[in-house]
Amino acid sequence: MAKVGIIMGSDSDLEVMKGAAEILETLGVEYEMKIISAHRMPDIFYDYATHAEERGIKVIIAGAGGAAHLPGMAAAIFQLPVVGVPIYTKSLGGTDSLYSIVQMPQGIPVATVAINGGVNAGLMAAKILAVSDDELLARLKEYKESLKNKVADKDARLGQLGYQEYIGQMKK
Amino acid sequence: MAKVGIIMGSDSDLEVMKGAAEILETLGVEYEMKIISAHRMPDIFYDYATHAEERGIKVIIAGAGGAAHLPGMAAAIFQLPVVGVPIYTKSLGGTDSLYSIVQMPQGIPVATVAINGGVNAGLMAAKILAVSDDELLARLKEYKESLKNKVADKDARLGQLGYQEYIGQMKK
Amino acid sequence: MAKVGIIMGSDSDLEVMKGAAEILETLGVEYEMKIISAHRMPDIFYDYATHAEERGIKVIIAGAGGAAHLPGMAAAIFQLPVVGVPIYTKSLGGTDSLYSIVQMPQGIPVATVAINGGVNAGLMAAKILAVSDDELLARLKEYKESLKNKVADKDARLGQLGYQEYIGQMKK
Amino acid sequence: MAKVGIIMGSDSDLEVMKGAAEILETLGVEYEMKIISAHRMPDIFYDYATHAEERGIKVIIAGAGGAAHLPGMAAAIFQLPVVGVPIYTKSLGGTDSLYSIVQMPQGIPVATVAINGGVNAGLMAAKILAVSDDELLARLKEYKESLKNKVADKDARLGQLGYQEYIGQMKK
Amino acid sequence: MAKVGIIMGSDSDLEVMKGAAEILETLGVEYEMKIISAHRMPDIFYDYATHAEERGIKVIIAGAGGAAHLPGMAAAIFQLPVVGVPIYTKSLGGTDSLYSIVQMPQGIPVATVAINGGVNAGLMAAKILAVSDDELLARLKEYKESLKNKVADKDARLGQLGYQEYIGQMKK
Amino acid sequence: MAKVGIIMGSDSDLEVMKGAAEILETLGVEYEMKIISAHRMPDIFYDYATHAEERGIKVIIAGAGGAAHLPGMAAAIFQLPVVGVPIYTKSLGGTDSLYSIVQMPQGIPVATVAINGGVNAGLMAAKILAVSDDELLARLKEYKESLKNKVADKDARLGQLGYQEYIGQMKK
Amino acid sequence: MAKVGIIMGSDSDLEVMKGAAEILETLGVEYEMKIISAHRMPDIFYDYATHAEERGIKVIIAGAGGAAHLPGMAAAIFQLPVVGVPIYTKSLGGTDSLYSIVQMPQGIPVATVAINGGVNAGLMAAKILAVSDDELLARLKEYKESLKNKVADKDARLGQLGYQEYIGQMKK
Amino acid sequence: MAKVGIIMGSDSDLEVMKGAAEILETLGVEYEMKIISAHRMPDIFYDYATHAEERGIKVIIAGAGGAAHLPGMAAAIFQLPVVGVPIYTKSLGGTDSLYSIVQMPQGIPVATVAINGGVNAGLMAAKILAVSDDELLARLKEYKESLKNKVADKDARLGQLGYQEYIGQMKK
Repeated sequence: MAKVGIIMGSDSDLEVMKGAAEILETLGVEYEMKIISAHRMPDIFYDYATHAEERGIKVIIAGAGGAAHLPGMAAAIFQLPVVGVPIYTKSLGGTDSLYSIVQMPQGIPVATVAINGGVNAGLMAAKILAVSDDELLARLKEYKESLKNKVADKDARLGQLGYQEYIGQMKK
Repeated sequence: MAKVGIIMGSDSDLEVMKGAAEILETLGVEYEMKIISAHRMPDIFYDYATHAEERGIKVIIAGAGGAAHLPGMAAAIFQLPVVGVPIYTKSLGGTDSLYSIVQMPQGIPVATVAINGGVNAGLMAAKILAVSDDELLARLKEYKESLKNKVADKDARLGQLGYQEYIGQMKK
Repeated sequence: MAKVGIIMGSDSDLEVMKGAAEILETLGVEYEMKIISAHRMPDIFYDYATHAEERGIKVIIAGAGGAAHLPGMAAAIFQLPVVGVPIYTKSLGGTDSLYSIVQMPQGIPVATVAINGGVNAGLMAAKILAVSDDELLARLKEYKESLKNKVADKDARLGQLGYQEYIGQMKK
Repeated sequence: MAKVGIIMGSDSDLEVMKGAAEILETLGVEYEMKIISAHRMPDIFYDYATHAEERGIKVIIAGAGGAAHLPGMAAAIFQLPVVGVPIYTKSLGGTDSLYSIVQMPQGIPVATVAINGGVNAGLMAAKILAVSDDELLARLKEYKESLKNKVADKDARLGQLGYQEYIGQMKK
Repeated sequence: MAKVGIIMGSDSDLEVMKGAAEILETLGVEYEMKIISAHRMPDIFYDYATHAEERGIKVIIAGAGGAAHLPGMAAAIFQLPVVGVPIYTKSLGGTDSLYSIVQMPQGIPVATVAINGGVNAGLMAAKILAVSDDELLARLKEYKESLKNKVADKDARLGQLGYQEYIGQMKK
Repeated sequence: MAKVGIIMGSDSDLEVMKGAAEILETLGVEYEMKIISAHRMPDIFYDYATHAEERGIKVIIAGAGGAAHLPGMAAAIFQLPVVGVPIYTKSLGGTDSLYSIVQMPQGIPVATVAINGGVNAGLMAAKILAVSDDELLARLKEYKESLKNKVADKDARLGQLGYQEYIGQMKK
Repeated sequence: MAKVGIIMGSDSDLEVMKGAAEILETLGVEYEMKIISAHRMPDIFYDYATHAEERGIKVIIAGAGGAAHLPGMAAAIFQLPVVGVPIYTKSLGGTDSLYSIVQMPQGIPVATVAINGGVNAGLMAAKILAVSDDELLARLKEYKESLKNKVADKDARLGQLGYQEYIGQMKK
Repeated sequence: MAKVGIIMGSDSDLEVMKGAAEILETLGVEYEMKIISAHRMPDIFYDYATHAEERGIKVIIAGAGGAAHLPGMAAAIFQLPVVGVPIYTKSLGGTDSLYSIVQMPQGIPVATVAINGGVNAGLMAAKILAVSDDELLARLKEYKESLKNKVADKDARLGQLGYQEYIGQMKK
């Protein structure tokens, strides 16, 4: 049964939001993914947000761009944590999305991650679940260790090759 | 029967939104004014937006600050024009409110006015109604003429007094 | 007889402003479209704005970029609603256009839509006319319904295909 | 035993961060509060972040202003959720704090709330704990209900008094 | 006969624009000063800009705030130089005024000075006239020399007093 | 003998600054063009700015990007008008260039034009010279008329072709 | 003999720049302090920057606001490190100062500190001198230790008093 | 033995940071270059910063993008100068990186250079070392002279070719 609901207002957000799905798969967390627009289908959205908790959803990840109301409106209805992903916009670089998501009024917080931070939204959802799931926490620590090892490997390779050859290989 | 619904998320917006009410009174347009939060009472908000049209509301004016979702969510439900008023915020000067209101996705426009532009929102609602109300249009033209006369009077006074005495009198 | 006048300062704005024309055609609203520059031909512009009302124009949609004065100057002369479309600019992302259009002084509102929001400007003009045109309102509701159905179809397809195959098909 | 660690880099952040403490008290969540600077005492900070989990801390709330590194560095060490509070700054309005906290690189998310959003940070921490604590979730729902009732009461009073008298009473 | 026309859209701009008048008086340049709104009285504005040249005006200084169209519209009609003064605004700090004035399209330049730069606008007008007026140029050079001497005097005083006593005397 | 000095800090600015040269050629104004860096060759720059007036230069046009000091430093030395051209930058869109040029302290104005406004800088220089040159003013008026005719021609063509065919022809 | 030259364009910058002087006094570093404007006295400025090195100056700290050219022009002439202090401005919050100082072209760096960061500029100058002065480095380490102790003391007091009493005492 | 440590959080920063390495090579300054992430490997980072001084490092150059904590955290531990390089980001243009690096709290300065200013960071490190190294200072002066000569050569070529042919040759 899905514990995380990944929702987005448009399929143009899918390229970013798949990052959340992938990391949740990596960490063994069940999720569902839906395209739901708070603006274009407010009744369906309202219904989803109202019944998510009883369906077993523990965290909602909502991505949106521009006047990004999906995360905040989800948080207005769903009482467990909502993680918001501001999607990059060409004109304002995603500051519109960011401000629309992070500047929520007192009483209705959204846990906002970086612009286009789909992967980080998935990680935050996993960390939230890991508060009461030691095995998941262990997998998160392994993941963190793997990030560290990747950087250490790159550093070692830079030490061996020097920056010129390293950059040369990056461009291949 | 009210033709314009003026709504705002918090009574802290009232100082700005009263500008809409005052100009509508001046122009003889009936309105109602309510404090309704899309975030804190999504069900009441949803109900209001759904039934506004059948209650005779022709235009909704919605003011909100920060992650300002009230105008956009109203426009997602109410099919006639929604005028949005971005409220000034201390931290971001109201750019958060402005971007949250104006950057609506294709299909769901909000007619956005200036930051703290309560009076202009009222005027825009009146202009919208004046499309099919010649008497209201006449009153709008009179109002416009009065604005012009006020500036002309000031210019005449500046010509008589010179800027030093004029400024001196402004400070009194 | 055209009820909506779509004007723009330069033919480089046409790609955005055609969105207004297309949606008005879809909704069965008559319009005219003109390239008129408030800066390069102030006399022709002044003449257009002054006589638009008597020619039957009920709403003017004006698009402009940079120091975007066309919508505000139209609103200074034409007494019925003016809808402003801020055009994206490379250097400032359209914040120059947006601020020049939305931050109008008290007394002279412009109904501003999103940066490059040509379609939404057309929709707002239609909503304004729909205040006194029930058939147009019905067509607007149908259009809204079609938007909802499109998203619902995408969501259904995402549910069937999964995000990987869905993205794969988007890229084709 | 404290489940939430509230940390801040300077006692000038205390006025905002006390909001987190107060709401956690209201909701019956145990917390600890500390002034710890990642810049001025990196060893003490490092020690705190390293041992927080084994001391029973489930969520860290970190507030910081300007080049705000405390939340992100906490998230680099502590594996459970970190909630970040960007503190308002006079020069940049808190955009410096916000960007320093929210724009974390892939792999190390911080759950960012609004500028000066101390109360919302406390609420987010409670929501995170409520994923596995039904009684806390019930208290959160009561709190949400009380927010709604407060707005509804204000709306009722506005309806009775009219905006002029309402504003008059606000100023008293 | 006035050679410089100082115009502004509102008497709230007078505090800034008087700086232009004062420096022109200091430099012995005749000017006229008027409150003319391009938005509230487009016909009077149009008339002023059209006839300014034949009345002997060589430079127009125009100050405006928010969606600041006065300088650009003046430049659209008046063929000699227009100097624009962006007025500070509370919400956007004057970036709205600045962008509305400086980002003029190709063909219609406005010589923009700093936000609230009334004095500098007067100086720029004088420099423009000094291109063909050697005596005025000489007075401008004297003025520049006086600026230098004032700074040199302050530096000398700082050297004598030390910064503590200097600041102490500033505060008196 | 050159009356206008066009200077820039780097040959990467040449693509923009040639616009100034071309329009001055069109208008029959003699100019000189030089690459002079205030940062990389302060002595040569200082020498140029000091002797420009005695060499007959009446207006300096200075273009620069990033921390753009060339226009302001020219204005600190050269007593006749300096026109500043902020060059677009990839990271900050030219806001760095714009602020560095327009926000000059009291006493030292720079006549700033739009980001990348090379042509407008040339036009402003010509307008400045036209204050005492009626033939140049006549040529400026002709140029303005030609701008108007170009827009009118486009509008006529749009009326004939309709927007679809017009756009189709633009893309060829 | 002074090793650090603290310069600023105006005595209005003195309140910020005294922070540099005070910390250098605390650390036992000799300095000189001057009011020198690159814009109002380019010859005196040029002379100062040219001869600073031979007078024994090792680091220049330059503070300026708005179109802040003093640090960058100092770096164009003086070959040892220049530390730049962007001064807060009311309209743009100091982003104008910051961009004018930090965005220097390749070849001419300025070591920029925070907006109004006078104290940090003094510390950076001391750190630069400490590269070849072990006693100064020792004093810097003591200073750093004292910063840490101050925060630790505050944290201890917060632990004893609780946040309510702590805040109560702060307000006294 | 390396005197300068060039560190960066990701190999995606290498293209910018190699500029620091190249200029240090040109100037004959020994350096080391490492990929170290304060977020992904806080223990390794902490170890590096703690032991850099005893290993002979005199200056650390740290480059980072987004929520860029590497330079500031290095400065929290390493007591000699830290030069920070804000890396360009697609969404916010590097303002996030810039603010995260330059807006350091009192007591912990970072010498910040321009966005993507890798070369300038290397130059600043060299200038810092040149305070106590006359030969290095001589090489820096030669480098500065070469910059000047390059611009002078370009200016000479522009004078010979004219801008049209010059631009034509640039495009080849």
